[in-house]
Amino acid sequence: MSELDKILNIDKDSSTKSFKKGEFIQKPDEQKANAIFVKKGVIRSYIIDSSGKEHIYMFASEGWITGDIEAVEFNEPTKLYIDCLEDSEVVLIKKDHVEEVNLSKDKMLENMRKIWKNMAKLQNRILLLISSPAVDRYNNFLETYPELPNRVPQKMIASYLGITPEALSTIRGKLAKGK
Amino acid sequence: MSELDKILNIDKDSSTKSFKKGEFIQKPDEQKANAIFVKKGVIRSYIIDSSGKEHIYMFASEGWITGDIEAVEFNEPTKLYIDCLEDSEVVLIKKDHVEEVNLSKDKMLENMRKIWKNMAKLQNRILLLISSPAVDRYNNFLETYPELPNRVPQKMIASYLGITPEALSTIRGKLAKGK
Repeated sequence: MSELDKILNIDKDSSTKSFKKGEFIQKPDEQKANAIFVKKGVIRSYIIDSSGKEHIYMFASEGWITGDIEAVEFNEPTKLYIDCLEDSEVVLIKKDHVEEVNLSKDKMLENMRKIWKNMAKLQNRILLLISSPAVDRYNNFLETYPELPNRVPQKMIASYLGITPEALSTIRGKLAKGK
Repeated sequence: MSELDKILNIDKDSSTKSFKKGEFIQKPDEQKANAIFVKKGVIRSYIIDSSGKEHIYMFASEGWITGDIEAVEFNEPTKLYIDCLEDSEVVLIKKDHVEEVNLSKDKMLENMRKIWKNMAKLQNRILLLISSPAVDRYNNFLETYPELPNRVPQKMIASYLGITPEALSTIRGKLAKGK
């Protein structure tokens, strides 16, 4: 058992899987979903609206855990597309591990804090979406994902921010001048 | 100790407080924050953007727990305004209770599930904000807050949805005709 596996409490029932760039880890309306820990690579989750347009919900690179919360925790059908932007290695964490029934209280409290951290990220994402100009949302993206700007296509960053690639290009130009 | 207090694990250190309609429970940049359980009334949380416009983050009525996640869990300064839309009775839950160090494992798992439920709500709110037309967002508001449409001013519902009161009025007209 590696140090990483120990930290995540992942035993032999968990499976590390390799996915090629462009491959899907999950599509909508699947009946079983896993939480996904990224060991290597970049994955993204997104939905497609009724007019066929993609909207990126989240990116996840090395060290992130992501997933379709209702599907993983409450056995609802999946909502999100999750695919790989690079060749990736991920650990698919089964519901039993997420429920963590066999953990010590200390470990449970530690995990609780991780969940609160993720929840704080979601709160911030909502506050930014409802009230902040695109430049603030882009700066928050850079803070949240410092390793991604050179690994993810600009048009996907624009989709995450909810703006056009042209608007993102203008923002980047202004920020570069300001430095 | 009432049944409700037992369920919430609220002991005598916690304080139930009454607030009048319009009164603030929290403002931004405060150094101490509590999670807020609503016993009676309706409260809302919101932020004000750089142009002075209000954006409603959440409503909470009887039975809801709400708060400023980073402030409560990680001792960050508060970000949100939280005020009362009706005369309200709330329980201010201190960080110790939220951390729940003295709970049984069963109780911790139960609380963990509640947190996941709230997280699923946040995920849905984000997905709706980034990809869904206003009519879907309004229908989701009605599902999430079935008790609120007649207790909250239309202009606040519009603010929560991120649309103008006029646009909300049009949506409500169309939905009424469709029935």
